[in-house]
Amino acid sequence: MKKSSQFAVVLSGCGFQDGAEIHESVLTLLAITKVGAGYQCFAPDMDQVQVVNHLTGKKISDKRNVLVESARIARGRIKPLSEFDEVPFDAIIFPGGFGAAMNLCTFAVDGEHCRIQPDVEKAVRAMHKAKKPIGVLCIAPVIVAQLLKGVELTLGQDQAVHEKVRKMGAVTKNTSHGQVVVDQENRVVSTPCYMLDSTVADIVLGAENLVKAVMDLIDKK
Amino acid sequence: MKKSSQFAVVLSGCGFQDGAEIHESVLTLLAITKVGAGYQCFAPDMDQVQVVNHLTGKKISDKRNVLVESARIARGRIKPLSEFDEVPFDAIIFPGGFGAAMNLCTFAVDGEHCRIQPDVEKAVRAMHKAKKPIGVLCIAPVIVAQLLKGVELTLGQDQAVHEKVRKMGAVTKNTSHGQVVVDQENRVVSTPCYMLDSTVADIVLGAENLVKAVMDLIDKK
Repeated sequence: MKKSSQFAVVLSGCGFQDGAEIHESVLTLLAITKVGAGYQCFAPDMDQVQVVNHLTGKKISDKRNVLVESARIARGRIKPLSEFDEVPFDAIIFPGGFGAAMNLCTFAVDGEHCRIQPDVEKAVRAMHKAKKPIGVLCIAPVIVAQLLKGVELTLGQDQAVHEKVRKMGAVTKNTSHGQVVVDQENRVVSTPCYMLDSTVADIVLGAENLVKAVMDLIDKK
Repeated sequence: MKKSSQFAVVLSGCGFQDGAEIHESVLTLLAITKVGAGYQCFAPDMDQVQVVNHLTGKKISDKRNVLVESARIARGRIKPLSEFDEVPFDAIIFPGGFGAAMNLCTFAVDGEHCRIQPDVEKAVRAMHKAKKPIGVLCIAPVIVAQLLKGVELTLGQDQAVHEKVRKMGAVTKNTSHGQVVVDQENRVVSTPCYMLDSTVADIVLGAENLVKAVMDLIDKK
C-alpha cells in the first residue's frame, strides 16, 4: 500500500485580525483529511505582532504567542516551526489571515519591502529546493512572492494588493471563489478565500481545490 | 420562494480547552450554509472561567471574555446572548468544547448539580417553549439535560459522563462517529463529535448529520 501523503500546515495565530484565519485553517485540515493524507501543524514560537479584539476590531495591550494561540486550532498537536524538517513532508500549506501578513512576514506594514520570518523563509526555501508543492491561501501568497521571484499566484481581485505583489516580482492573476492558480514550475498553488467577500462555503471550495491541486503536483513528481 | 431557515449558534469562547471547540464550531457554520440556511452567532458577554495554554494544557493567568474570543470564530459578526430573541430563529445550536461545560454552565466543576448561565437558560427555554429545535454537539448536551428533564441525548460513550447526566434526569444513548440522537418530543438533536477520539472528517459528518436532522424537525413543524 502506498504511504499516504503528509502535509505540513503553518499557522500564524488564531483569528483573522491578528493570526491565522480560523475557517481557512480548519477547512484546510479537513480537505487534507478528505483526500486521505495526514498533517502536522507548525507555527513560529514568537510573540504576536499585535492582539486585536475581534468584536471591536481594536488593538488591545495583551501579549500572546503565535505558537500557543495556533495550538487552539491544532487542538494542542503542533510543533515550533524551528523544528520543521522537509524530509517527511510531501507539501506545505499556509492558510491566510492577518497573521500571515504580520507574524509570518511584515507585508501588512512594509508592503513590497516585507521581510519574511526566518523559520518561514527556511521552510519555504527547503520545500522549494526539494521540488515539493507549496500551497498558499488568501494573503499568504505574499510570502512566496517575496521568496520566489517571478512566481505566478492569485490574491483575489484587490488591485492595490496585486500592484504591491507585482513590485515584488510576482505575476498575479485575478480569481473568483474557489479558483486556484497553479505555478507548475515553482510548484506553488494559491487560492483567494477571504481576499474575496466570501461565505464559509466558498472557503471550503477553495481549500478543497487547493489541496487537490497540491495532490496532483505530488503525484506528478 | 420560501424564506431560508435561520439558525442561532451559541459559542463559548475560542479553543476546546477553555472555550468553544473550533472545528465543531466552524463545521457547524459550514453545515448550516450547505443546507441553504443562514446563521447568527451569539455568546454570553462574561469573563471566561479560565484561560488555558493549548500547547501545554496548563491554566494561565490571562483574563479573556467569552464574547470577545468567540468573535474570532465568528469573524466579528456576533451578538451578546443577552440580546437573543427566539422569534426570527428556526433553531439554535450549541457546539461543544470545555467552554460549553465551564462558561455556558458549570458541569465541568459541579457535574449533575451544575447551574446554567442565565442567558443560556433563557434562550433554551424560549426555543423549547416555541417548539423550535435545539442542536447540541459534544459535551453541550449537558445544558439541555439540566433544563429539560427526561430529554434523550448522546454524549458518545464515556460512561462516567453518561452516569452524571442520567442523574440529571436525562436518558443517554451510546453513539459512534457522525451518529445523531433525535428526541422528537423535546425537539433536541445531539451528536458526539470530540466526545469520541475523532478526526476533523468525523466532526464534519457529525455536524452535517445534526444540521440535517434539525432541518427535518423544522420542516415537520
